[in-house]
Amino acid sequence: MDITRYMPVLSWGRRYGRKELSADLIAAVIVTIMLIPQSLAYALLAGLPPEAGLYASIAPIVLYALFGTSKALAVGPVAVVSLLTASAVGQVAEQGTAGYAIAALTLAFLSGGFLLVMGVLRLGFLANFLSHPVIAGFITASGILIATSQFKHILGVSGHGDTLPEMLLSLATHLGDINWITLGLGGLSISFLFWVRKHFKPFLLKLGAPEKLADVLTKAGPVFAVIATTVAVWAFELQTQGVKIVGEVPQSLPPLTLPGFAPELLGALLLPAILISVIGFVESVSVAQTLAAKKRQRIDPDQELIGLGAANMGAAFTGGYPVTGGFARSVVNFDAGAETPAAGIYTAIGLAIAALALTPLVYYLPNATLAATIIVAVLSLVDLSILKTTWSYAHADFSAVAATILLTLGLGVEVGVAAGVIISVLLHLYKTSRPHVAEVGRVPGTEHFRNVLRHDVQTHPSLLTLRVDESLYFANARFLEDLVQNRVSERTDIKHVVLMFSAVNEVDYSALESLEAINFRLGEIGVGLHFSEVKGPVMDRLKRGHLLEQLNGKVFLSQNDAFRELTHD
Amino acid sequence: MDITRYMPVLSWGRRYGRKELSADLIAAVIVTIMLIPQSLAYALLAGLPPEAGLYASIAPIVLYALFGTSKALAVGPVAVVSLLTASAVGQVAEQGTAGYAIAALTLAFLSGGFLLVMGVLRLGFLANFLSHPVIAGFITASGILIATSQFKHILGVSGHGDTLPEMLLSLATHLGDINWITLGLGGLSISFLFWVRKHFKPFLLKLGAPEKLADVLTKAGPVFAVIATTVAVWAFELQTQGVKIVGEVPQSLPPLTLPGFAPELLGALLLPAILISVIGFVESVSVAQTLAAKKRQRIDPDQELIGLGAANMGAAFTGGYPVTGGFARSVVNFDAGAETPAAGIYTAIGLAIAALALTPLVYYLPNATLAATIIVAVLSLVDLSILKTTWSYAHADFSAVAATILLTLGLGVEVGVAAGVIISVLLHLYKTSRPHVAEVGRVPGTEHFRNVLRHDVQTHPSLLTLRVDESLYFANARFLEDLVQNRVSERTDIKHVVLMFSAVNEVDYSALESLEAINFRLGEIGVGLHFSEVKGPVMDRLKRGHLLEQLNGKVFLSQNDAFRELTHD
Repeated sequence: MDITRYMPVLSWGRRYGRKELSADLIAAVIVTIMLIPQSLAYALLAGLPPEAGLYASIAPIVLYALFGTSKALAVGPVAVVSLLTASAVGQVAEQGTAGYAIAALTLAFLSGGFLLVMGVLRLGFLANFLSHPVIAGFITASGILIATSQFKHILGVSGHGDTLPEMLLSLATHLGDINWITLGLGGLSISFLFWVRKHFKPFLLKLGAPEKLADVLTKAGPVFAVIATTVAVWAFELQTQGVKIVGEVPQSLPPLTLPGFAPELLGALLLPAILISVIGFVESVSVAQTLAAKKRQRIDPDQELIGLGAANMGAAFTGGYPVTGGFARSVVNFDAGAETPAAGIYTAIGLAIAALALTPLVYYLPNATLAATIIVAVLSLVDLSILKTTWSYAHADFSAVAATILLTLGLGVEVGVAAGVIISVLLHLYKTSRPHVAEVGRVPGTEHFRNVLRHDVQTHPSLLTLRVDESLYFANARFLEDLVQNRVSERTDIKHVVLMFSAVNEVDYSALESLEAINFRLGEIGVGLHFSEVKGPVMDRLKRGHLLEQLNGKVFLSQNDAFRELTHD
Repeated sequence: MDITRYMPVLSWGRRYGRKELSADLIAAVIVTIMLIPQSLAYALLAGLPPEAGLYASIAPIVLYALFGTSKALAVGPVAVVSLLTASAVGQVAEQGTAGYAIAALTLAFLSGGFLLVMGVLRLGFLANFLSHPVIAGFITASGILIATSQFKHILGVSGHGDTLPEMLLSLATHLGDINWITLGLGGLSISFLFWVRKHFKPFLLKLGAPEKLADVLTKAGPVFAVIATTVAVWAFELQTQGVKIVGEVPQSLPPLTLPGFAPELLGALLLPAILISVIGFVESVSVAQTLAAKKRQRIDPDQELIGLGAANMGAAFTGGYPVTGGFARSVVNFDAGAETPAAGIYTAIGLAIAALALTPLVYYLPNATLAATIIVAVLSLVDLSILKTTWSYAHADFSAVAATILLTLGLGVEVGVAAGVIISVLLHLYKTSRPHVAEVGRVPGTEHFRNVLRHDVQTHPSLLTLRVDESLYFANARFLEDLVQNRVSERTDIKHVVLMFSAVNEVDYSALESLEAINFRLGEIGVGLHFSEVKGPVMDRLKRGHLLEQLNGKVFLSQNDAFRELTHD
């Protein structure tokens, strides 16, 4: 067994030199600065104390660095997984209680276990059943839900709800309680962050700053907002005016924690954990793949499961909550020049120092500022143009997107994504259950056979040739039975039916039985059944059944052979 | 609108003459004689009083004759649907209570409503998602369950259970209570019926009876068993010895009844009703199709839904329970020469006379005899050879059969069939999620391109040509991404990738995005992405997206064009 497959660190660690070290250190400093406010904010979104966000960024990063295959992926709390955590944990415990934190650890534990099992069994391909329209719809709807969920912090009111109508209703009933100072801080932060995102880099470039520095300072936008609003609260004692602040955050390295092992808790969180794992995995792999491709590197999706599983296990035992590879942080890490996963380890050290030494500095940080950073970050996830794009491409894909968005907003994240998957699968089965079947004839003077409806071709009244443009399996087997039956009962002069199999990649047992039934029924009325252009693997398969022995016709290598022999041409 | 589409009787009724009348009358007499014991027996299986079986054979037959499209299908109680009824109704009411009978009517009502809705919406194709292996496994397991469930009547003990282990355990604990006279009657009936099935026809032929008569008498075997055991009970007053008998059956035409409309009852029975409808529909359509094909007739699956829906509605309002087209009775009807659905109407008249006049004759009929007729009838459904056949054909199909059989026996009919469908769909998705992709090269001196692993072909180090043998959709989109990525990162001298699309029948939005990602990533490292042999409909689809505008390569009509241009051959 090749141990380096399961611990990629053994292969890149051996070639680690000074050049890699300096590149990784620079990337780590940049990412650390960006991650401090982000981690606090996502913990808030997950309904956990702010330090949980920091802890979830330390051990998981290190474990992913040891087991993961991406050189640039940065693992930690991300927006969508934080939302899913809040939704799942909120169903078993009250926010702010010890049970809530334990449930979050348990969720990370289950999620990690599930990812590890999937990785060892090499089941990474299962994530492919989340179609792109479903993912796109889900991410967009989640962005809307997340942004809406944060408005209570901007307004300084209480609010709750897992769905858009619930959240809006809850906000509406509390509009009388708005804390105007909080709203001022939050509103300014949002405006500032949007301005930074759009205009800060051109502004810095105009000032003559180098491109790289301008990039880094732009990404650090939230840090300026954090500093400015923290200082404002401290200077004017705004916390006495009802402005909610982060407050005391323990000065500590990540603690050793135990998830809950009560069977009811595990049972209640298992399905959400699977959902979180799959969504986190899909998001992470697509980020990792995009970044790896830029350097002609590759990632191994099954090993990624192990890396992410280890990371979540780490989160479960060090006071964190479910984590995955995040898009924004990974791109920053990549752009900052990270060469190896060691950059992640240095980031973890930076964050550990922050957890140990810097937490008193965020005592006066208003929650509204964190909410503002979340809102600005997630609104970039919202992309309703996918509706237009899929509509013009294919209505089936549009339906999957629209259903996922509506159900996620209306019924919550879990129902939304489950419904999306089911709808995608059903639409796919529906499409392949009514395959395109063309009656074909010979293009005069050639050996080509084309659709009789589109081309002027030679046919013969006693011969019916059907080209089936789909693999044959249970969902379309009876369709073909009906079709042949109908054609033959409409045209009583047919003596031979040829099925042209050039686009048939598979014939399953149901389809085999349907072909046997077609053969039997045609035999009863004296009509021959023939095949042409059957692919090698399909022919191998057919030879294992009895169809070919019972066939009241022949198998022709080419459609032209069939045409010539059956029409005596 | 063509009213004859919805009421086929209007088209065949107009041409009805003396010849059809006499053929239909003869068939009706034969079927009626066969149906009397069968209807009583299936009612017993469904846990209902015996007359429910007769009633379920009268109005439904007439309604199907008016709305159905098969000329030979005989509709009424059948074994599998009776078992499903017992299982579903047993969950909401106690056998023998008025609530049980009402629940059975309600089940028929819901089933009829569901079938009608499906028919009007033309959703008959949905039944195709029951793959043949699942149906075969389900029918076999049901046969075993039904036969086992009847042994309590043969032994004269009480017993219960919806799964094989439950039934066997329940029988085992009652072995001390065996009524030996009942066992004698039941055992003799079973032996006699097996003998009739195998040896009666050759025996009659040897006696010089005409073939047709020998056939009819063989099918009437159960009638002889019924008469003999009824007379035996009456003559020796065996009912006083603990032999359970049918007892009083009301002398009446089918009564007008109302199903229950309580929301909880409707809610509890909805899923079972859908299951019964789908299974009944599939069974019925395959019988109807087989018989229609023999006369080069056709049936319309969507209109069949309407016919069966009307029949079930009829059962719901006339004291019956869910019905469908039965295999045995339809074959007898067909073989006896039925020409039109009017044969069914005459059968209904025969059964109505029986219900009105002949029920006192079955007072002394022992339940054991009815159980014997059920056991002998359903054991012909049990076909374990499907396990061997599917094993040698394809392991995926074998898995579906085996899982359906095991789960139906072990967890009951509803779980079994639901699991079977889910497993079939997952196996199909799994297979298509890892499509066969061959790297191809040119067969020297030709324009053909074949797998480089199987053939001695021309290739070029800077050109990678992949032939994808499957439609591209969400489940295999990422597979292709990984594959291209891996090949390109292994062979750094590749400058052009050609995807040969001759077997690609569809590209969904997920696959489009994957192709865009492949194109983008290849573009970043200066490798061209090209397509060849793209089918018309696929090309039309691709033109609606942005892939072709962004493509860093070309679309070639033929693979040979691509090879020549990209290798400067």
